[in-house]
Amino acid sequence: MRKVEYPAPLQELIRQLQRMPGIGPRSAERIALWIVQAPNSRPGEISEAITRCSKAVINCRECGFFAEGELCVICSDPARDRSVLCVIEQPTDILPLERTGAFNGVYHTLGGKLSPLNHVGPEDLRFEALLQRIKQVPPSELILALGADVEGEATASYLSQLLAGIELRVTRLAQGLPAGLGLESADDVTIARAFSGRTEFPR
Amino acid sequence: MRKVEYPAPLQELIRQLQRMPGIGPRSAERIALWIVQAPNSRPGEISEAITRCSKAVINCRECGFFAEGELCVICSDPARDRSVLCVIEQPTDILPLERTGAFNGVYHTLGGKLSPLNHVGPEDLRFEALLQRIKQVPPSELILALGADVEGEATASYLSQLLAGIELRVTRLAQGLPAGLGLESADDVTIARAFSGRTEFPR
Repeated sequence: MRKVEYPAPLQELIRQLQRMPGIGPRSAERIALWIVQAPNSRPGEISEAITRCSKAVINCRECGFFAEGELCVICSDPARDRSVLCVIEQPTDILPLERTGAFNGVYHTLGGKLSPLNHVGPEDLRFEALLQRIKQVPPSELILALGADVEGEATASYLSQLLAGIELRVTRLAQGLPAGLGLESADDVTIARAFSGRTEFPR
Repeated sequence: MRKVEYPAPLQELIRQLQRMPGIGPRSAERIALWIVQAPNSRPGEISEAITRCSKAVINCRECGFFAEGELCVICSDPARDRSVLCVIEQPTDILPLERTGAFNGVYHTLGGKLSPLNHVGPEDLRFEALLQRIKQVPPSELILALGADVEGEATASYLSQLLAGIELRVTRLAQGLPAGLGLESADDVTIARAFSGRTEFPR
């Protein structure tokens, strides 16, 4: 008597779904069974949305936010104030900052934070592109909106050294951010307060 | 100043992912952002697995289990005993039954259970196909492995009436199943005990 298992494509789908964040074996099986049993074109629409999205959505050439064309909705908006530049870790930090309504400038995404433990060094982050931007269009203020955790602090310190000798007002978010947490975990009020209470960065 | 949102394909992907069972707005956003930021071919592999699976996996012509060809791994196995037919609600009930190792016969999937509240009537279930099968290859025993909930009981009763006049031994799983729960929630030992303790079905 042969061992009874799901057909190979179904097993493969369960394996693939488990690669997605937050999806364990049970959820993956549940979703895969739903996909196999869905009566209409839903699975097709989902796989199409995945393909379309991973092809069409790229990072903005200027700031690194998600974009469909070369420039994102922020960098292509003439109403934004290009003289205030906000440095963030990841593109996902932009939406929570935007929700506060406290900021009308433009962003620069580093693509992460310095983390020797995770083998992330200065060469892995977009520091060079930031220096280029500052040289080409010198901003009146550079806001460091980095997390209040150890790696965020280290990244801010490193950046401060990089900027030594460049005439520029550098501020950073007030320490209203709860210590030890990254920007993605903070609520809107906390982010807004941190924004309005930002202080001069010691250089 | 324009409202800052994710690009349209990303928003569409978040909407599509929320159609999957157990995926709320937060999980959908997390998965979509992972898909957009994944550095390699993973999203492509996932969407390919979805497409391949929803195309390649069909229901077995004979029993209704998941299959790649016309017949599933059970119905194409010459070692299975075709004289014992086990009636189940859904194809997903087969794997837990197989895990008990207590059964060597073949299955018949009804595709659900009678449920007036959910507008599932006899015409929505595979009763007719079951009668055809019984007529073509009369089994020595028909095991009703339906859930011990109200709808499962109603389905068993209806089936008993349908089979009136046909010379056939009909048994059903012992009431070792915890009352009120469907087969998919029971543990292997419970299912195995229910199997071995099956009793004559009153007709």
